[in-house]
Amino acid sequence: MFSDRLGATARAIQAHFDLILGKLDDLPVVHAMRHATNGGKRLRGFLVMEGARLHGVAPERAIWPATAIEALHAYSLVHDDLPCMDNDDMRRGQPTVHRKWDEATAVLAGDALQTLAFELVTCPEASPEPWVRADLALRLAQASGAQGMVLGQALDIAAETAERPLSLDDIARLQQGKTGALIEWAATAGAVLGQSDPAPLQRYARALGLAFQIADDLLDVTGDSAMVGKAVGKDAHAGKATFVSLLGLEAAQHRAAGLVEEACDSLAGYGAEAETLKEAARFVVTRAH
Amino acid sequence: MFSDRLGATARAIQAHFDLILGKLDDLPVVHAMRHATNGGKRLRGFLVMEGARLHGVAPERAIWPATAIEALHAYSLVHDDLPCMDNDDMRRGQPTVHRKWDEATAVLAGDALQTLAFELVTCPEASPEPWVRADLALRLAQASGAQGMVLGQALDIAAETAERPLSLDDIARLQQGKTGALIEWAATAGAVLGQSDPAPLQRYARALGLAFQIADDLLDVTGDSAMVGKAVGKDAHAGKATFVSLLGLEAAQHRAAGLVEEACDSLAGYGAEAETLKEAARFVVTRAH
Repeated sequence: MFSDRLGATARAIQAHFDLILGKLDDLPVVHAMRHATNGGKRLRGFLVMEGARLHGVAPERAIWPATAIEALHAYSLVHDDLPCMDNDDMRRGQPTVHRKWDEATAVLAGDALQTLAFELVTCPEASPEPWVRADLALRLAQASGAQGMVLGQALDIAAETAERPLSLDDIARLQQGKTGALIEWAATAGAVLGQSDPAPLQRYARALGLAFQIADDLLDVTGDSAMVGKAVGKDAHAGKATFVSLLGLEAAQHRAAGLVEEACDSLAGYGAEAETLKEAARFVVTRAH
Repeated sequence: MFSDRLGATARAIQAHFDLILGKLDDLPVVHAMRHATNGGKRLRGFLVMEGARLHGVAPERAIWPATAIEALHAYSLVHDDLPCMDNDDMRRGQPTVHRKWDEATAVLAGDALQTLAFELVTCPEASPEPWVRADLALRLAQASGAQGMVLGQALDIAAETAERPLSLDDIARLQQGKTGALIEWAATAGAVLGQSDPAPLQRYARALGLAFQIADDLLDVTGDSAMVGKAVGKDAHAGKATFVSLLGLEAAQHRAAGLVEEACDSLAGYGAEAETLKEAARFVVTRAH
């Protein structure tokens, strides 16, 4: 059920990217945007579509913000992979943009993907309600800028030269910016589209976001690069403090499981309809085993 | 009159940046955002403020999109200056962000400045009308993404390895993306804020944008780096086709002057109130002499 829907959403988002990017000029930067938005689990887009479904929003509307958050996520990966950042050669089992093209193309493609995300949430097709479009864009900006995702990345870089190792609270703040804020945007977008209270989905997203990051840290220790689609063991190699290094493997797994339970509990008000989102929360943690 | 207003607007935008960036964390990426948004003529912000004044929009509203377009412009400069792009050491008489900090900080600061631009146009302070906020954001995305500014930059990069030199039409399309689209956004934002027809200001902006780029090409030939605040003579050195190389110095100056006249004519309906915008158009060209 969950994996069927995840797959169907991934295909719908891919088709939407094809439609939108197909209208652009035949230039390396556009090819790079296609490459960067190709593949991946589309978990963030899935959260948008499922949240929208819970609030009776048509998929033809929800596909716009769902594609937007995947464009935003793709931009962050393209720039993260740059030689001056994480210097990664592989992503989703494919060469990274700067390896397949060059750094200039990667900078520009990432820039244009960020812009595209804001275009997709503010175009009239996303919602007939102007305030919904303005609100989605404002929330997306807050989640991804210097008080959200970029803050998380900057804290991550600062941690490399910090005099004292990060505490659990530091890591939680870092991850809330780096991954959590966008997951929260994705999970609550459907409620915003449906003009309903986003609070239950926000609670779900906060627990899920933390579980997701712990799972990511676990993957770096227990995964293999073929399965993960990118290099592993980098955190331990770099001596980085992570949830796993601070809590230990078993306690980190336990913590992640507790967060999944918390995420599921916060959806109680939606009844059986929310089962797929609960499965998504379980999936996020089990992929790390 | 014009230079007084330009100066006053520059100070107001600086104060607004201080207010907004002052709320962010004390991190290198935030210092870099301050550095990148410091100085400059603020011509784009000025166009927003003047267009708003023509439509009776309060400066307290207009300052938000005026600061937004300067944030967007600053992001484009920070990324343009990167070693993989233009590799510039100086900007506005100061070291570029990647020279003062490092490349990772420049990538992130540029990213966060783009995000900030969308936050500033969609926050409720910019306009009480949600559709105005959504429309400003959508137009900004269209002007700055892969069909606007990034397209212009990509065409510029493609031109370096093109088999045939660019024609005047090619250069006009390139510049319409690279500089023109943002100038158009800036000049029409006031009409959007005032919920009026942006057509006259759009005509003004199209002529102004082209005049601006020709003036820029002229500056590269006739300016000195101390006055311009960045390296000059780069285009000729790189053998790049420009308005000046294709038209010749005198014809390019003549063309720019004709465009300024066209820009001024399109403001006829606004009467004496538009005098400052006309002076702005004249200024854009005379700075190149």
